[in-house]
Amino acid sequence: MTMPLSGQMMDVPLTVSSLIAHAARYFGDTEIVSRRVEGDVHRYTYRACEKRAKQLAQALIGLGVEPGERVATLAWCGYRHLEAYYGTTGFGAVCHTINPRLFPEQIAYIINHADDSYVLFDITFAALVDALAPQCPKVRGWIALTDEAHLPGMKTPVISYETLLAPQDGVYEWPVIDERAASYLCYTSGTTGNPKGALYSHRSTVLHAFGASLPDAMGISAGDSILPVVPMFHVNAWGIPHAAPLAGARIVFPGKDLDGKSLYELMEAERVTCSAGVPTVWLGLLAYMKQAGVRFSSLNRTVIGGSACPPAMLRAFQDDFGVEVIHAWGMTEMSPLGTLAKLTWEQAQRPPEEQRKLREKQGHVIYGVDMKIVGPDGNDLPWDGVAFGELHVRGPWVINRYFRKDESPLVDGWFPTGDVATIDRDGFLHITDRSKDVIKSGGEWISSIDVENVAIAHPAVAEAACIACSHPKWTERPLLVVVKRPGVALTREELIAFYQGKVARWWIPDDVVFVEELPHTATGKLQKLRLREIFRDHVLPSAVEDAI
Amino acid sequence: MTMPLSGQMMDVPLTVSSLIAHAARYFGDTEIVSRRVEGDVHRYTYRACEKRAKQLAQALIGLGVEPGERVATLAWCGYRHLEAYYGTTGFGAVCHTINPRLFPEQIAYIINHADDSYVLFDITFAALVDALAPQCPKVRGWIALTDEAHLPGMKTPVISYETLLAPQDGVYEWPVIDERAASYLCYTSGTTGNPKGALYSHRSTVLHAFGASLPDAMGISAGDSILPVVPMFHVNAWGIPHAAPLAGARIVFPGKDLDGKSLYELMEAERVTCSAGVPTVWLGLLAYMKQAGVRFSSLNRTVIGGSACPPAMLRAFQDDFGVEVIHAWGMTEMSPLGTLAKLTWEQAQRPPEEQRKLREKQGHVIYGVDMKIVGPDGNDLPWDGVAFGELHVRGPWVINRYFRKDESPLVDGWFPTGDVATIDRDGFLHITDRSKDVIKSGGEWISSIDVENVAIAHPAVAEAACIACSHPKWTERPLLVVVKRPGVALTREELIAFYQGKVARWWIPDDVVFVEELPHTATGKLQKLRLREIFRDHVLPSAVEDAI
Repeated sequence: MTMPLSGQMMDVPLTVSSLIAHAARYFGDTEIVSRRVEGDVHRYTYRACEKRAKQLAQALIGLGVEPGERVATLAWCGYRHLEAYYGTTGFGAVCHTINPRLFPEQIAYIINHADDSYVLFDITFAALVDALAPQCPKVRGWIALTDEAHLPGMKTPVISYETLLAPQDGVYEWPVIDERAASYLCYTSGTTGNPKGALYSHRSTVLHAFGASLPDAMGISAGDSILPVVPMFHVNAWGIPHAAPLAGARIVFPGKDLDGKSLYELMEAERVTCSAGVPTVWLGLLAYMKQAGVRFSSLNRTVIGGSACPPAMLRAFQDDFGVEVIHAWGMTEMSPLGTLAKLTWEQAQRPPEEQRKLREKQGHVIYGVDMKIVGPDGNDLPWDGVAFGELHVRGPWVINRYFRKDESPLVDGWFPTGDVATIDRDGFLHITDRSKDVIKSGGEWISSIDVENVAIAHPAVAEAACIACSHPKWTERPLLVVVKRPGVALTREELIAFYQGKVARWWIPDDVVFVEELPHTATGKLQKLRLREIFRDHVLPSAVEDAI
Repeated sequence: MTMPLSGQMMDVPLTVSSLIAHAARYFGDTEIVSRRVEGDVHRYTYRACEKRAKQLAQALIGLGVEPGERVATLAWCGYRHLEAYYGTTGFGAVCHTINPRLFPEQIAYIINHADDSYVLFDITFAALVDALAPQCPKVRGWIALTDEAHLPGMKTPVISYETLLAPQDGVYEWPVIDERAASYLCYTSGTTGNPKGALYSHRSTVLHAFGASLPDAMGISAGDSILPVVPMFHVNAWGIPHAAPLAGARIVFPGKDLDGKSLYELMEAERVTCSAGVPTVWLGLLAYMKQAGVRFSSLNRTVIGGSACPPAMLRAFQDDFGVEVIHAWGMTEMSPLGTLAKLTWEQAQRPPEEQRKLREKQGHVIYGVDMKIVGPDGNDLPWDGVAFGELHVRGPWVINRYFRKDESPLVDGWFPTGDVATIDRDGFLHITDRSKDVIKSGGEWISSIDVENVAIAHPAVAEAACIACSHPKWTERPLLVVVKRPGVALTREELIAFYQGKVARWWIPDDVVFVEELPHTATGKLQKLRLREIFRDHVLPSAVEDAI
């Protein structure tokens, strides 16, 4: 890097605390509304939030927590969780958000791997904490995010959060922190092996907040009342807890009740303009609204990511309810936002059906993220919407390695996402599979998801998984594992015949096996690796034929 | 700064070249449309733009320009000027944009002070260059932004830009540059003394581009077709040449013809959605539209800054034409964006008249800018919308000193803007005066602009300036200098009586002087310092009375 002449600008580090300080100073009266796990609705302002975050910082420093130490949270979307975000990172500690939906043994592994000093938890998770505490002897204290009156009966000795904060005056100045210091720690919930930690920096968190706020990302403004359905334990709720203070947006935290009725009522009561979450939650909301015959009066857009948004959901939001769907893609290793399906000026001049097809893809990158697709040989693939390869990314909010792992996951400076995708001439990304799930048949790739989608469209199929099965001639060929709908007849031959004309001939599964159920992870992901183990010795009829 | 634990994120510097590289890679087909000084309309894409910027970089490197050296531009908004932005900063040189509206001797001073190696100029400025060249002997070459066929007849030996680019192949990789290296140099057009240079860094330019893109700033998206009326020699056209590639927005450059008819026709032909400029230009556009009886078919918003937007203009855009006006404030020393008048969710629930009043102010800061108002004693003043003091700012895109000036302009780490303002409880800024123009009367401040606004509202007044006049008892008292409308009668006593009930009693001018005309700078600013010199020995009647 060369610097023969330095710019003459103020040297201000990008720190997480500057976000809440900005909101408290310039949007001090703006509300943060929370439906609490205690059952009621709590309201206060950014000004009050920053003060309590400072009280928390004072309390944790008083408990001996040092900058760089990890403090964990096990909590829903709520104001105390927001205070925990800023009250830890603000003095240089690292906020480690734990996904309570993982198996308890995975959570214990994560707490011990991260060396968490304290764990702040919602009282919903009292039983879970009682199960974890004996396995996590290095944790110095368990702090229940409630007051004395609501402390649950527990085996584990716990501290009430409100009791901890009460003696602190909140008169505290956020220290200046190196922007490359660690801010948050989020573990991936991988389908195999132990979870791995992504360790963000203050710089990456702030730059990601800028990116997440852009009009082509979540477009968050001071005019918004934003309800994050995506939990704060899931990749920092996609950055909303940082982007909202950056803009001075009003926040509405839904707490633990994410059913359709609860969400709808809160959105209407608080005149929510914008939301974000995974497809599953929206299914519940849409089902409730159709059944109750109600409409949105203030919601104008919602970001949908985490897994692909079904085209029918996109249509329901846009055509039935007049709400813009912003289809997004990202991952824990990238803070998480990567691409969003917002149309360009030129795309917006195209026929409506073509626009709809574009919105079904995962969209274009936001500035700060670079992407490419590479083939099995590692070479760049063309952006023609047809060629598909492994998606690689890089940028200032992408990890360069995992926490406490020496080996670098990077390939030539790019992070291999493990997703398989196409990119079209417009730069629109379309995720087609996970790289470990594609079937490598004779040097070419077959998308397991595309094969499954055909099977799922058959009226007799309840669930389907397509996995690779070894083959003497083609290396791998697709095997379809199917759960039938109850009381319906379907044969192997009928299902294979169903594929005719729907996919390329060589993509048609070589065999079909019917099972009672498919294996899933704690967070509901299909465990294809497990399936591959189960069917390791499965002999394809075609393998026998070719051997003859 | 402490960093006990470093985040594990990719270390990607924020460089100006990454903006055009992003646009070329992900929005390669998006158009850049330019009305050329040659008279025709030119169209190409971001992909072609980046290639030609690389050709320019190759050519300048071939001419011996080193990283850190300054390369100047004297040009309107156009695609070649955009190539000059990226073709210089991209390899580490500094792009020095010169305001051609300054007096020639000021321009010569600037070129010599900056040590510009080459000057790229639009052929409109051929005569100006012929006048400058003999005064700027250190300039190694003058490059006309045109092809051989359009080279004007000049005394100065010049190179044609197209001839310079032609032999270069554009196969060039942007080098990695330290993000704190200098990117752009912009001189202020102060009303007194020599212009002073603000030297931006790659980091500040990119962070400002993020800030300028936010929904509460210019809100630039890939769905926009944006026409910058504010020239590219005026504080980087408020960052649009950086924010547009960041978003992948379509750009429409108007060239030199900024009259109402030319602007309107270009906006309609190119389906422009968004624009930005100073009030004067919009006056011309609105006058043309009313006279021609035409309306906008695609424009949805415009940013107005540079000087205060008159309330009548705000109403005309919003009520008559359905275009949102975003009132903005900033300055060269802050890249330039500071505040914009976008309403919060809560403000948007207030009565329309109250909302309108808020939009007439300069609005709230965007994240990245901190502000405060201080009184004559340097102490913080309350944010009550009444107390007014000098506005101080700080942040990563605010200068810490001027180019080639040793003394720091900062006060306790804040940059004193020289503007006098109030801030209300909503954090909305309202600029009331320049600090050197306020009248310090008995330890209290009187806003010269507020006093002038009353006079201008009188039907017989064409122009008015309120300046401080020395006073034995009150130190200073206001003197009003007035240009009458032709053929209208008005006396000193009538005008003083006109103030009754319109301002506080002690704000009423002590005297009125009628003149034929008021002194202005080359860029049209009222020269109050000159007026104060002219009226240095003026004796106020009140001074005589108090002396008796």
